[in-house]
Amino acid sequence: MPIISDEELNRRRHDILVGARKCFADHGYEGATVRLLEEATGKSRGAIFHHFGDKESLFLALAKEDTLRQAEVVANNGLVEVMREMLRHPERHDWLATRLEVASLVRTDPSFRVRWKDQQSILDEAMRARLRSKAEQGRVRGDISVDTLMAYLQTFMDGFISRLVQGDTHDLEAVLDIVEHSIRTATSAKLKATE
Amino acid sequence: MPIISDEELNRRRHDILVGARKCFADHGYEGATVRLLEEATGKSRGAIFHHFGDKESLFLALAKEDTLRQAEVVANNGLVEVMREMLRHPERHDWLATRLEVASLVRTDPSFRVRWKDQQSILDEAMRARLRSKAEQGRVRGDISVDTLMAYLQTFMDGFISRLVQGDTHDLEAVLDIVEHSIRTATSAKLKATE
Repeated sequence: MPIISDEELNRRRHDILVGARKCFADHGYEGATVRLLEEATGKSRGAIFHHFGDKESLFLALAKEDTLRQAEVVANNGLVEVMREMLRHPERHDWLATRLEVASLVRTDPSFRVRWKDQQSILDEAMRARLRSKAEQGRVRGDISVDTLMAYLQTFMDGFISRLVQGDTHDLEAVLDIVEHSIRTATSAKLKATE
Repeated sequence: MPIISDEELNRRRHDILVGARKCFADHGYEGATVRLLEEATGKSRGAIFHHFGDKESLFLALAKEDTLRQAEVVANNGLVEVMREMLRHPERHDWLATRLEVASLVRTDPSFRVRWKDQQSILDEAMRARLRSKAEQGRVRGDISVDTLMAYLQTFMDGFISRLVQGDTHDLEAVLDIVEHSIRTATSAKLKATE
């Protein structure tokens, strides 16, 4: 039996993720059958499930890649910037549609819900840290709890993704300005204007 | 052949709508089969489709009832009040879940999309009229176009419904306060405080 290096294992894992992301985007979560995943990744089902266990885990691994990237953007520029990036990349909207499709799994499947929430907690933590720090600097409204600000931004983002997916992007740049403005203090708006 | 009065026809139509709403809420749009609709309404498929043509039209008739009621609330108290009402009526959330389910039809079926948008235009007009009038009174921000304010509120409401449906209602009252505040002028907030 040949010995496979860690590097080679990581490369295979990466190839599966790239192919699977396209497959989910093209066919949706339900539509991405094992046969289509094999085609898209160029790997056998044995190889795919050796790396990821099952289709749900494969999907969650992709969602985790998103979450890690988003958490990084949040740390530097906040959740509104995550949404501005989504608006600038229409080629990723089909994948976002797949994420919306699993909202019904979150709703109806308790074990999926736990895994999904656990995965989203990375993003929650990044948001909490940023909002706390901005509130201490007096740049984000201090009269509203950080939890409520987070719920506001996340609720808005759910609707925002649903608009993108429906191809209804009219005015969304200006709409994001309202969201950004609504969580800022007046002082911060002035600081921003003179930056 | 017996002659049926208009009153009797309206009563039958009403009974079908009541039963069908519960059936869609219990089983989802796809899950509400013709057999289940017959059971829930106590009417034969012949009678149901005599009144509503097909399942899609029956569903759109129910959505239109919502839209008319919402347009009335919007005219008197604005879209944020529509959302506050949703929050106060958890027994209607299963029906809202069905509305979310058809979002994918809106996305993928052009003829459904046209019918859906046409139906939503009643609500759009009520929002436009209210925001214009509030902007003229100086109570809603005049530095943002009415179209952009509408897009902001509607995008938020999409996310809001998705939260309700997932049973994630934590902090949503306070979140709605942020939304309300974000479209108001400072003057209006002061007026409100002294009302």
